[in-house]
Amino acid sequence: MTTAAPPVSSSSSQPPAEAPTVQVISTHEAEKSQPTSVTACQMSQNVLATPRGAEAPSPSVYLSKRGNSIRQHQGTLQEGFVQYAANKYHVTDNPEGIINLGTSENKLCYDLLHARLTRPDMLYVEPSLLQYSDWTGRTFLREEVAKFLTHYCGSPKTLNADNVVVMNGCGSLFSCVAAVICDPKDAILIPTPFYGVITDDVDLYSDVKLFHVHLDCEVTIKDYRAFHLTVEKLEEGLTKAKQEVAVILMNPHNPLAEIYTPEEMIAFLEFAKRNDLHAIVDELYMLTVFDESVTFHSVLSLDSLPDPLRTHVMWGLSKDFAMSGIRAGTLYTENRELVEALAQLGCFHGIPGTVQHQVAQLLQDRAWIDNEFLPENRRRLKAAHSFLTGELRSMGIPFLDRPAALFVWADLREYLQESSFQEELNLWRCFLRHNVLLSCGQAFSCSTPGWFRIVFADQHLHLGGLTDLHQAAAWTHPS
Amino acid sequence: MTTAAPPVSSSSSQPPAEAPTVQVISTHEAEKSQPTSVTACQMSQNVLATPRGAEAPSPSVYLSKRGNSIRQHQGTLQEGFVQYAANKYHVTDNPEGIINLGTSENKLCYDLLHARLTRPDMLYVEPSLLQYSDWTGRTFLREEVAKFLTHYCGSPKTLNADNVVVMNGCGSLFSCVAAVICDPKDAILIPTPFYGVITDDVDLYSDVKLFHVHLDCEVTIKDYRAFHLTVEKLEEGLTKAKQEVAVILMNPHNPLAEIYTPEEMIAFLEFAKRNDLHAIVDELYMLTVFDESVTFHSVLSLDSLPDPLRTHVMWGLSKDFAMSGIRAGTLYTENRELVEALAQLGCFHGIPGTVQHQVAQLLQDRAWIDNEFLPENRRRLKAAHSFLTGELRSMGIPFLDRPAALFVWADLREYLQESSFQEELNLWRCFLRHNVLLSCGQAFSCSTPGWFRIVFADQHLHLGGLTDLHQAAAWTHPS
Repeated sequence: MTTAAPPVSSSSSQPPAEAPTVQVISTHEAEKSQPTSVTACQMSQNVLATPRGAEAPSPSVYLSKRGNSIRQHQGTLQEGFVQYAANKYHVTDNPEGIINLGTSENKLCYDLLHARLTRPDMLYVEPSLLQYSDWTGRTFLREEVAKFLTHYCGSPKTLNADNVVVMNGCGSLFSCVAAVICDPKDAILIPTPFYGVITDDVDLYSDVKLFHVHLDCEVTIKDYRAFHLTVEKLEEGLTKAKQEVAVILMNPHNPLAEIYTPEEMIAFLEFAKRNDLHAIVDELYMLTVFDESVTFHSVLSLDSLPDPLRTHVMWGLSKDFAMSGIRAGTLYTENRELVEALAQLGCFHGIPGTVQHQVAQLLQDRAWIDNEFLPENRRRLKAAHSFLTGELRSMGIPFLDRPAALFVWADLREYLQESSFQEELNLWRCFLRHNVLLSCGQAFSCSTPGWFRIVFADQHLHLGGLTDLHQAAAWTHPS
Repeated sequence: MTTAAPPVSSSSSQPPAEAPTVQVISTHEAEKSQPTSVTACQMSQNVLATPRGAEAPSPSVYLSKRGNSIRQHQGTLQEGFVQYAANKYHVTDNPEGIINLGTSENKLCYDLLHARLTRPDMLYVEPSLLQYSDWTGRTFLREEVAKFLTHYCGSPKTLNADNVVVMNGCGSLFSCVAAVICDPKDAILIPTPFYGVITDDVDLYSDVKLFHVHLDCEVTIKDYRAFHLTVEKLEEGLTKAKQEVAVILMNPHNPLAEIYTPEEMIAFLEFAKRNDLHAIVDELYMLTVFDESVTFHSVLSLDSLPDPLRTHVMWGLSKDFAMSGIRAGTLYTENRELVEALAQLGCFHGIPGTVQHQVAQLLQDRAWIDNEFLPENRRRLKAAHSFLTGELRSMGIPFLDRPAALFVWADLREYLQESSFQEELNLWRCFLRHNVLLSCGQAFSCSTPGWFRIVFADQHLHLGGLTDLHQAAAWTHPS
């Protein structure tokens, strides 16, 4: 891997003189404050399962075995977010607080959102919105989602509202889909690194495991792309796996920010079809591509899907519309039997009727989306990305240079004293002690220690905190 | 059972000359469009599981065994609500449509709600509301819920916001609580009849069963109250049960509308304590008591709970504030270990930040609640209840006369040709064919066929549809 050019970019790869080894406690994916333990492969589970040591809560006599297991997740994984929540950075009120570069949220466009979300059309109540309704989402919302996806995914045909399911977040959709396409203990294939919360999305309720296909960070003569996903690797993973019924594909990818071409996606979907696997395609960042010369292609833009009844496309407002707190995720699938099954679980994942109205209003406001929000959002994301990557270059930190998503996948291996996940956690904790919350590779089941996801979609002042990284070389070992 | 006075009231018990026996297909509890099959006892399951006959969907090759099982629920139980949703009664637009007296919703106070929910304080957005937060509910909301419950439950001490969990509906809370206090296949004790959707709330995701304690509709010299819940019956049920870890208590009761005294509730809670059972206390209708001479006592009003760490009190906005479409349920428990475990599952049951703000605004507006909403709501409920019960009396239909909740539990046994659940479903379907949707006793696991829950909290014009019951005697058998 080199440092100057794509796929991995950095102006210098010199390691700091001294790497930190402070004691670590835990890591987490802050979005869900959920565990990231590796369930279907051997990697690194012990490190994640034990870091709290004596602090781990003892089993509660009031909870079942399952309940205690669910609760234990909290002890090892919420520490970072809990610390952040209790000590949030604020430019004037708490300038010594924790800067959160760990949670994938877009905090750059609040002014635009506030202006839109406080327009009079958002304050609308009618009787039916206060009453029970279709658990897959109200018809008017599913129709707007279908129109929206038809347009922004570039679908050659008009997408059908009956194929849309709307729930309170994509985590809920992952949970439901896992519950109805898998039986307990079944497994789903997923390339690593990946957004680690999915592990819990499919496991906590539905008892479904992930089987990891590890992508390598090293480039070779044969394979010039770091973390290169190929059909061969999927095929190889599948031969090792058992009971797989599905594969999860992310485009743009989290945490790599990789954008796959239509040809690549078709190949992955053909792989799924050959093996009778459901393909769950996560396109949560589809509109978060901030280089106008780069085009994202949704699988819904394909003239025909290789296996339409086993292809299920996820999207939501959390990332592309910077509204993770609004809780709205969508699934598009032509499989009506799947939709019927999801409808049964939808009662646990309902969205308020009034918010369904608001989301529909937003999605149909093409003037605002196309003329106000998207161009300005892209401009700000691009500037923030440039700022962060400039900082990384100045520090000699290699990273994947991709014009998508809200984060950069950065290579801090040079800051580890030795190549271990314990050391990675040490570094993660060291950052936290210096009031910078990042997400370490282990939370994404990365096979190589030392990679971190750094979110750039925040004010530049906040990002300034990242320059604490400059101090890493000076950080000393704890007593 | 007599007809004039509590516990069961009717002006006449004369049966109609002829009872209907049309072919039935299904029954349902419309709120969730979920199944009501009886899982842990022998009662009536076959009737519910089979009525669609050839119409039952065949297993899907795209779904797992679990997924097919979940989907099958839909086939047998959603028919009524699907028919209603496709053909809703409207006074001018669709006067021949289906009148829904089956779904427990309060449709009497939309004008009051609209006026409050469109005030400017409801259109409020700030950055944090659009971002991820505490999955047990935002602090400002949990604080308002704690204050609200302290006041309206008459708690002798100030309730603690840290003991509050807020999720998108009480169905979600039932699902989560079952998941963390029970292991798969464990069972929870519940007196019947009961709000049948709970069967699925605890089963669909969490694989927890209900063990029924049947209450008898007949009064005796020894027991003058129909469907009388006593500690003796709970104890007797427990001796027959296995693996019970909890008991569900409802007050006011659904579907009986029974209000239990503090002494009764203490006795039930002492029973739970003696047997190391969690007590899940559902007080969803606590403010829906419309006779000012009757006082409801929350268990949170007790000076001390018998077993506070195993007592978990549920409330929500769906019934008392007529907002089932807003999806907001609350749990109060002093068991912090339970709260920690629920926090892990909360990511699947999140409420939009903006709606959390709205709910908090509503709950803190005591002037509106005390001076506008509650008195007028009670007045309208009382009038609607009087109207319905007057109709029932004029038809000679016995019923439980209780000044609470949104429905009346009515005895239509005289309309059955024979005492069977098949006949009860026949009658339910006969009503539906005449565009009146009710909920039949089997949906509540009632042990005696012929009881129906009739919702009165709708406009009088709608209730007029109930007079179709007058025609029951004239309905003919199908060919």
